[in-house]
Amino acid sequence: MEDDIKIIELKQNVFKENEVNADIIREECKANGQLMINVMSSPGSGKTTTLVRTIKELNEYNIGVMECDIDADVDAYTIREAGARSIQLHTGGMCHMDAGMTKQGMNEMGMDGLDIVFIENVGNLVCPAEFDTGASINMTILSVPEGDDKPAKYPLIYEVCDIVLVNKIDAMAVFDFDKDLCVSRIKELNPDAKVFFVSSKTGEGFDEWLNYLRGLVNEVTS
Amino acid sequence: MEDDIKIIELKQNVFKENEVNADIIREECKANGQLMINVMSSPGSGKTTTLVRTIKELNEYNIGVMECDIDADVDAYTIREAGARSIQLHTGGMCHMDAGMTKQGMNEMGMDGLDIVFIENVGNLVCPAEFDTGASINMTILSVPEGDDKPAKYPLIYEVCDIVLVNKIDAMAVFDFDKDLCVSRIKELNPDAKVFFVSSKTGEGFDEWLNYLRGLVNEVTS
Repeated sequence: MEDDIKIIELKQNVFKENEVNADIIREECKANGQLMINVMSSPGSGKTTTLVRTIKELNEYNIGVMECDIDADVDAYTIREAGARSIQLHTGGMCHMDAGMTKQGMNEMGMDGLDIVFIENVGNLVCPAEFDTGASINMTILSVPEGDDKPAKYPLIYEVCDIVLVNKIDAMAVFDFDKDLCVSRIKELNPDAKVFFVSSKTGEGFDEWLNYLRGLVNEVTS
Repeated sequence: MEDDIKIIELKQNVFKENEVNADIIREECKANGQLMINVMSSPGSGKTTTLVRTIKELNEYNIGVMECDIDADVDAYTIREAGARSIQLHTGGMCHMDAGMTKQGMNEMGMDGLDIVFIENVGNLVCPAEFDTGASINMTILSVPEGDDKPAKYPLIYEVCDIVLVNKIDAMAVFDFDKDLCVSRIKELNPDAKVFFVSSKTGEGFDEWLNYLRGLVNEVTS
């Protein structure tokens, strides 16, 4: 019989301490040669599907995932089946993760032996962008059906993200989505953002994304 | 030259007064025979496109729309071009509307002569569900590409919504979306929810939705 996934009910830290806590987490990960990536997106953009394919294809690394949800726990099981260490964090109705919550998750999941840790943040483009989780890399997923105008509508998340995955490109033919316009809207907000076009369903575009990720791991461990 | 859309920078009311303010708004709308509908969804589910088609097809009514966004204003112009009275509300980074904000919007937009008022809430499935806006009807839009599992992941919004529009059904063939499973997940959370399957792009399914809406207007004005 399958073991139950551990579920942690999170408590919110004092807000003003968040930046300090976030820096402590980053220092700790750096000292241990671990890459922590905070993954943010709208609900249904494909965070879990993207992580599942990434975990399966990057099987040379030990990967951990903190699954943050209001109160569901299905994603944590999906992630574990893909081959990663996994913990379910419940935000108690809160719309984002902060550094204190990340620290609780790290302690409960256990960081030993992990090369990469993903935080799958609450599905929301507004609140998660405002709170530093302590991850060294912020990443957002924009799915093609949401439209190429989302960077203009939710600018902050694009300003704080180092990586943008444009997902569900297999559905490009069905939607009016202008790739060049989308990239220029992202670059206007954040000229340094790395943009990848992928389909987590078919695997299209994944080689480039995975190679970039390997490069980030090498930077951290070297 | 086109007039500028009025933009209001909202201030948050004291939280505990929200329920009282919401009830006052509902009483006021009832007394004036006006139907107010709070529209919530993920970013990119098609709130604006759905409202545009609804406004154009329901041209027997005077319709007003309060567009709530973090800081964009494109949607308010789109709505006005469709033929509705329109105002842009900026939440100042906040992730939801509350009743005090609705009242500010009503005062600034002007309610005289309107039959239906839509609040297009911030694109977010978490926070808007927690705050009573004073609307008499809550509605959410779930787009097919987001997946049929969203009710299970974001239950509160389905519990508080009277109407669910499942949008982008023209893209049904491209995505694994189980209509029956989706409806049963919604009904499990909210047995009274009215569920409509529509495409705001092609107009498919709109007749049933518009007739239901006409019925709601008749109830309020009779």
